[in-house]
Amino acid sequence: MSLTIYCLNGPNLNLLGEREPEIYGRDTLDDVRALVESRCSEGGASVVFRQSNHEGELVDWIQEARTKGAALILNAGAYTHTSIAIHDALKALTIPVVEVHLSNPGNRESFRRRSFVAPAASGVIAGFGAYGYRLAVDAAIELANKRS
Amino acid sequence: MSLTIYCLNGPNLNLLGEREPEIYGRDTLDDVRALVESRCSEGGASVVFRQSNHEGELVDWIQEARTKGAALILNAGAYTHTSIAIHDALKALTIPVVEVHLSNPGNRESFRRRSFVAPAASGVIAGFGAYGYRLAVDAAIELANKRS
Amino acid sequence: MSLTIYCLNGPNLNLLGEREPEIYGRDTLDDVRALVESRCSEGGASVVFRQSNHEGELVDWIQEARTKGAALILNAGAYTHTSIAIHDALKALTIPVVEVHLSNPGNRESFRRRSFVAPAASGVIAGFGAYGYRLAVDAAIELANKRS
Amino acid sequence: MSLTIYCLNGPNLNLLGEREPEIYGRDTLDDVRALVESRCSEGGASVVFRQSNHEGELVDWIQEARTKGAALILNAGAYTHTSIAIHDALKALTIPVVEVHLSNPGNRESFRRRSFVAPAASGVIAGFGAYGYRLAVDAAIELANKRS
Amino acid sequence: MSLTIYCLNGPNLNLLGEREPEIYGRDTLDDVRALVESRCSEGGASVVFRQSNHEGELVDWIQEARTKGAALILNAGAYTHTSIAIHDALKALTIPVVEVHLSNPGNRESFRRRSFVAPAASGVIAGFGAYGYRLAVDAAIELANKRS
Amino acid sequence: MSLTIYCLNGPNLNLLGEREPEIYGRDTLDDVRALVESRCSEGGASVVFRQSNHEGELVDWIQEARTKGAALILNAGAYTHTSIAIHDALKALTIPVVEVHLSNPGNRESFRRRSFVAPAASGVIAGFGAYGYRLAVDAAIELANKRS
Amino acid sequence: MSLTIYCLNGPNLNLLGEREPEIYGRDTLDDVRALVESRCSEGGASVVFRQSNHEGELVDWIQEARTKGAALILNAGAYTHTSIAIHDALKALTIPVVEVHLSNPGNRESFRRRSFVAPAASGVIAGFGAYGYRLAVDAAIELANKRS
Amino acid sequence: MSLTIYCLNGPNLNLLGEREPEIYGRDTLDDVRALVESRCSEGGASVVFRQSNHEGELVDWIQEARTKGAALILNAGAYTHTSIAIHDALKALTIPVVEVHLSNPGNRESFRRRSFVAPAASGVIAGFGAYGYRLAVDAAIELANKRS
Amino acid sequence: MSLTIYCLNGPNLNLLGEREPEIYGRDTLDDVRALVESRCSEGGASVVFRQSNHEGELVDWIQEARTKGAALILNAGAYTHTSIAIHDALKALTIPVVEVHLSNPGNRESFRRRSFVAPAASGVIAGFGAYGYRLAVDAAIELANKRS
Amino acid sequence: MSLTIYCLNGPNLNLLGEREPEIYGRDTLDDVRALVESRCSEGGASVVFRQSNHEGELVDWIQEARTKGAALILNAGAYTHTSIAIHDALKALTIPVVEVHLSNPGNRESFRRRSFVAPAASGVIAGFGAYGYRLAVDAAIELANKRS
Amino acid sequence: MSLTIYCLNGPNLNLLGEREPEIYGRDTLDDVRALVESRCSEGGASVVFRQSNHEGELVDWIQEARTKGAALILNAGAYTHTSIAIHDALKALTIPVVEVHLSNPGNRESFRRRSFVAPAASGVIAGFGAYGYRLAVDAAIELANKRS
Amino acid sequence: MSLTIYCLNGPNLNLLGEREPEIYGRDTLDDVRALVESRCSEGGASVVFRQSNHEGELVDWIQEARTKGAALILNAGAYTHTSIAIHDALKALTIPVVEVHLSNPGNRESFRRRSFVAPAASGVIAGFGAYGYRLAVDAAIELANKRS
Repeated sequence: MSLTIYCLNGPNLNLLGEREPEIYGRDTLDDVRALVESRCSEGGASVVFRQSNHEGELVDWIQEARTKGAALILNAGAYTHTSIAIHDALKALTIPVVEVHLSNPGNRESFRRRSFVAPAASGVIAGFGAYGYRLAVDAAIELANKRS
Repeated sequence: MSLTIYCLNGPNLNLLGEREPEIYGRDTLDDVRALVESRCSEGGASVVFRQSNHEGELVDWIQEARTKGAALILNAGAYTHTSIAIHDALKALTIPVVEVHLSNPGNRESFRRRSFVAPAASGVIAGFGAYGYRLAVDAAIELANKRS
Repeated sequence: MSLTIYCLNGPNLNLLGEREPEIYGRDTLDDVRALVESRCSEGGASVVFRQSNHEGELVDWIQEARTKGAALILNAGAYTHTSIAIHDALKALTIPVVEVHLSNPGNRESFRRRSFVAPAASGVIAGFGAYGYRLAVDAAIELANKRS
Repeated sequence: MSLTIYCLNGPNLNLLGEREPEIYGRDTLDDVRALVESRCSEGGASVVFRQSNHEGELVDWIQEARTKGAALILNAGAYTHTSIAIHDALKALTIPVVEVHLSNPGNRESFRRRSFVAPAASGVIAGFGAYGYRLAVDAAIELANKRS
Repeated sequence: MSLTIYCLNGPNLNLLGEREPEIYGRDTLDDVRALVESRCSEGGASVVFRQSNHEGELVDWIQEARTKGAALILNAGAYTHTSIAIHDALKALTIPVVEVHLSNPGNRESFRRRSFVAPAASGVIAGFGAYGYRLAVDAAIELANKRS
Repeated sequence: MSLTIYCLNGPNLNLLGEREPEIYGRDTLDDVRALVESRCSEGGASVVFRQSNHEGELVDWIQEARTKGAALILNAGAYTHTSIAIHDALKALTIPVVEVHLSNPGNRESFRRRSFVAPAASGVIAGFGAYGYRLAVDAAIELANKRS
Repeated sequence: MSLTIYCLNGPNLNLLGEREPEIYGRDTLDDVRALVESRCSEGGASVVFRQSNHEGELVDWIQEARTKGAALILNAGAYTHTSIAIHDALKALTIPVVEVHLSNPGNRESFRRRSFVAPAASGVIAGFGAYGYRLAVDAAIELANKRS
Repeated sequence: MSLTIYCLNGPNLNLLGEREPEIYGRDTLDDVRALVESRCSEGGASVVFRQSNHEGELVDWIQEARTKGAALILNAGAYTHTSIAIHDALKALTIPVVEVHLSNPGNRESFRRRSFVAPAASGVIAGFGAYGYRLAVDAAIELANKRS
Repeated sequence: MSLTIYCLNGPNLNLLGEREPEIYGRDTLDDVRALVESRCSEGGASVVFRQSNHEGELVDWIQEARTKGAALILNAGAYTHTSIAIHDALKALTIPVVEVHLSNPGNRESFRRRSFVAPAASGVIAGFGAYGYRLAVDAAIELANKRS
Repeated sequence: MSLTIYCLNGPNLNLLGEREPEIYGRDTLDDVRALVESRCSEGGASVVFRQSNHEGELVDWIQEARTKGAALILNAGAYTHTSIAIHDALKALTIPVVEVHLSNPGNRESFRRRSFVAPAASGVIAGFGAYGYRLAVDAAIELANKRS
Repeated sequence: MSLTIYCLNGPNLNLLGEREPEIYGRDTLDDVRALVESRCSEGGASVVFRQSNHEGELVDWIQEARTKGAALILNAGAYTHTSIAIHDALKALTIPVVEVHLSNPGNRESFRRRSFVAPAASGVIAGFGAYGYRLAVDAAIELANKRS
Repeated sequence: MSLTIYCLNGPNLNLLGEREPEIYGRDTLDDVRALVESRCSEGGASVVFRQSNHEGELVDWIQEARTKGAALILNAGAYTHTSIAIHDALKALTIPVVEVHLSNPGNRESFRRRSFVAPAASGVIAGFGAYGYRLAVDAAIELANKRS
């Protein structure tokens, strides 16, 4: 049976490609979805790919991934820095969690330095734009396979 | 006419019993609901018992309790530490508010030290697991009766 | 073609007039809506006027204003102080943004000092109660006209 | 054999009912003692009830409770916020410890936010005035019974 | 009898239009004076319009406004962030005080975040350049009329 | 009937004249007692003059002054900077409290900057050595007389 | 030859008696001047008594006191908390300096906690209203006599 | 001509596999070197792979990579958190820099939160153990190719 | 004449061997006393060995050591981190002071990092369990002999 | 036409040579003026040399230098650490600004660490006493020539 | 087989006896070496005694001690306060580590308060000058013997 | 006999002219060496001019300057902000130390604000690019001559 990878995206990522492209790049979220699907398919995995501006909806989906997913790729966007609710939801997971960011929080505003996702994630990939999702897929499959 | 007690529960409390049981105990949210209903019924009160992962929905319900409830028992979960919106909603209440937590924030991560619920609550009960809800019901009924 | 001004209101503003009137005044949100509509109509603009307790919904609406509005008046309520998601949504706008507050955060609790809206807004008007919305309409129209 | 509950009270609690009644209520410490004794007796427990203004004496008594008590109810008053000595004494206990406060530290001066009792307590009950001692007795007996 | 509005301006505002125009705009202080006088005159008010680089002189003038003015519009410039003396002078006023800034301190250096004027002002208008003075006149007259 | 002035002295003040005389001066505590008694007697007041190294004992005595004294002169020594228990005891007084220090905390170690006595005192006299007690007696009698 | 005592008063003290009388009392600055002159005259000293809202003028006068005065009584008002210039001027004095405040900074806003005068003063008297100036005169004469 | 990838490793990484394996895993640095060489060779790149415990030597090597390398993979170990010298050396590079860590600093000691490498890196990969180097090679080659 | 070494022990040290043995070891305070007496006797010194849970009593005894002891070994326990009173008492000593701790505060809770004993001690020995007292005796005798 | 160098000196510098000579040296301000004039004259420049204790006057003069000077040497004394008004005035200059201090703020009180002049200056020279003004003249002339 | 004790000394300790002797004493590093060798020889141990100004070299040597030493005595000098690299190297040891300092960091500059060595050391000895090394040898041998 | 001036340069200064020229200017380190040598030669001094990326090597050289140099010019580069080892080495010097920086740390990243060199230097010259070395030579010779 193939692996199911959840790839969840947080607020404003639906504007990808249009919003501050000098920071986030020119790929749209559909481009990212295509990239993720294709890379998963190469690795023999299927994808659940979603985006929401709602913190609560992201919590709902993370809880869903808990029983239905083999690994979780999470770009929580701005909620990365403020959401203890997402942190707690992740803590309830036993599957691997890969935190991904398009830009590198290390050279942005200081309020983006704190991550509530990181302490509950297996690892983090940041700063490589859309390409970072490809790396995240590789990592997620690697970790999911090692675990099973 | 009997009292109506609102008992509202925040993010990830639907996972109770499954998530980090060494911290939150093995009772499920349904166990808690049963316990609350039974204790209220002994005190001649009825209960509105709900859970949501959405901050905005909790604000909506707190506003509802404002006119329909005699007291509010609130376990805001992670939003306790981040939500000024919930703080403001509580400030608009004149009915008693009992803050309840399963675990004792005093011996957990430092980001759980700050409570935006506490300054808007009558009192707080924390660290007694599901049993704390029973104490909270007693307190809520006591305060509601004193007030009427 | 007439201008469309978005006027978005955050959590608990639906309680306006009832909640802590010594801080927020006795006008209701319907009074504010009437005031905004009338002032806009004087300035030849139409209004989209909404309120939500949900952070995610506000983000959705701000994104909508991005393509459909000529200017945005935003009273993000408590989310002003906690929401990086709203900050990011505003950063994606190119239309003018007027931050408005009924009360003056400068003489309230310290946790209301920080604004995530301000760094992404053209300007701010605070402390004038409902009348501040009238000033905000004037400013929004002025900025929208200057830009077109 | 019946349980012995230690109920220890810290500095200035002997002035209860006289000192700042708008914060601490109008019940005297004798009223509290009566309430605690009566509730314990209902639960089949006996009480050791004491008050001291001396940090060292409270440490002595906590050490005594260590071998002679089945549970400890502690209102350490001002020493809650400053006494690592009491913290250390509590850490040496294996019986349950219930922290109780008449007022809600969450809406008082910032120097009352820190509790050295909390990280060494099973749970905390605060803000319910004298009634909180009744809840504390219930919790102490519950925890003591569960443990034996 | 017509209202007298005091409009006081702090250090370096005499350089307006020449100094860092990308921040403060290209209007000179004489342009602002003309705008303020014209808008006041529309509202049936007369103006006392002054500028000083001296903190003490601003304190003297604020004290003068205390008995001779119906409202005060204050752009304290850099003293906004450092002057407790101005704060104290404002606290002695009973007339309305409108704080105005050309730029939006919310997106400038962190040392411009603190305002000693705000806690003593009725409201604040910031970020709208010279146009903000027009809004300030409207607000000052509105508040002065409401009060008389 | 003559006034009774309580003059209470905290830890290490019994070493006065011997301990770090370059900071605390060469007068002994007996010299201070004599000075206080003589000045009180000129003002028609009697004195209760005590010293203790025990925080709890100082709390006991402050409580005693509450009903038996007309005013309290307090040099709490090191407990000034650490004792919330003394702060709370003072808060329970309605008689005037004069805080006195031999040295000037303003030019000593930073941990002597915080005073838990000051927010509960009528006024403070510091830095004048033993002579400061004479000023404190004058102030205490003045305040006690004004009050009666 | 008689002593000359300088008594210098900072910003807004000219409003004494009118400004926030619940904090500063109802005595005017002329009342304070009379009190100071009368007490000095009893002690065989003459007075230079002045007030200014200008930091620079206070620095000028402190420099003048350096060569013409036997002691300095300084109520620097708001400049107490912000003026390193006054601090430096005081450091250049060898005559005694008595810092005086009408109210007790210990129970006011946190920005009044820091004093740049204290580390350069012999001692401080605060919280006794106008009467504090009488104590300050006693202290100034005592210190001036001890020194000569 | 093939690409040259520099892969530089900081202090204590020579102990890999032996030191705290529960944090850093059981692969040795030679295993990592083999993995990096093999992945580079797949991507048509050659590798300069080195380790040093000396901050200055790492600076020397980073400067060397500046003219001789097509991309830099840097695991600066403990110097990540303390070395501004390495930060400055990286700032002088125009080739892509991939920061890599075996463990996830986000859930370790707080002194590992600050990275002086991140603000000078293109992106970061952390928490995937030795496998993270494989991802880093992919990213380095991708970025180097995009650039040429 | 032989030297007298004071060895004073603070709160909860009477529980040594029973309390948290994984931190403090299994030796009891009587074992420590025996070890100290035997090592002193080898060095030709006699010992005053005491323990108290009372801060004030420790201050009393430190003052006693001031005139009767040749050196002081002090394990102030929890008061190390909170007691300025003990700090001041130590400052009044001219005999050598050796601070000793059973555990190593450097790897415990952050509130154990601050020591008010250290700045008033000749030296510190920490982390060696009961054996540290033996080292402390050696150091105390060495320093006492050097001084005489 | 010869260059005009403005050399402006802040509060208490008129006391140079008399005030704390162990910190500021024994040269008077007249000595400094002579030194500056002579060095300028060697470099073919004329000097405007002034001193004021008034922050506002320094702002006035900096504004004057803006149009009449070729370079500005500024020793703002204590205002260096507190004056955003001077900072803003300097920001309006396009001529070079050389910050000079007699002593080295790096080894003085912490409140002298922050400089509001530095971020608006070309460079800084500190710690060389009066000789530093000579270096400052060299630098000012160098920068002014480079610019013209 | 005899024990080998590593005794490693950090930057500037080669200047011992010459550099700031009022802080570090008059013994040279050769005196310390002799003292350590003699004390080790009494305890049947041999010594590897070294000094370096290079952080990287200290890391190299600590790694060497890891396999060749029975215990490590480390005076890391200034690197104590800044080197996470040394911290990490120590964490990789299983032999006992005794941290030693000549002076007592507890009464020096605040930047010497933080120790990265302490959390990775068995215990610490500080403030006893060269004599502290003798105590450290005793402790190192005691701990090494206990372990074998 | 001529003076020997040590001029030591820290990490990355060997890249001068190539690295971030908009901050550090276009002169190379060889240009600086030539400038320093020529200016020294005019002043009758010889130069030891070196650069290293190694903190330990800089410490070694500073120690060498201690006995062989008449003055030290130090641009410690990034180590300025992190090296207590260099601070301690400088403290052991009795010759004058001139701290020099090419850029002005006052308007760069906040982590460049702290200088461990400054408290151990005679004075500082910053922000004048390569020309600052010329000023530093003048200052070094002046101070060296004054001292001999």
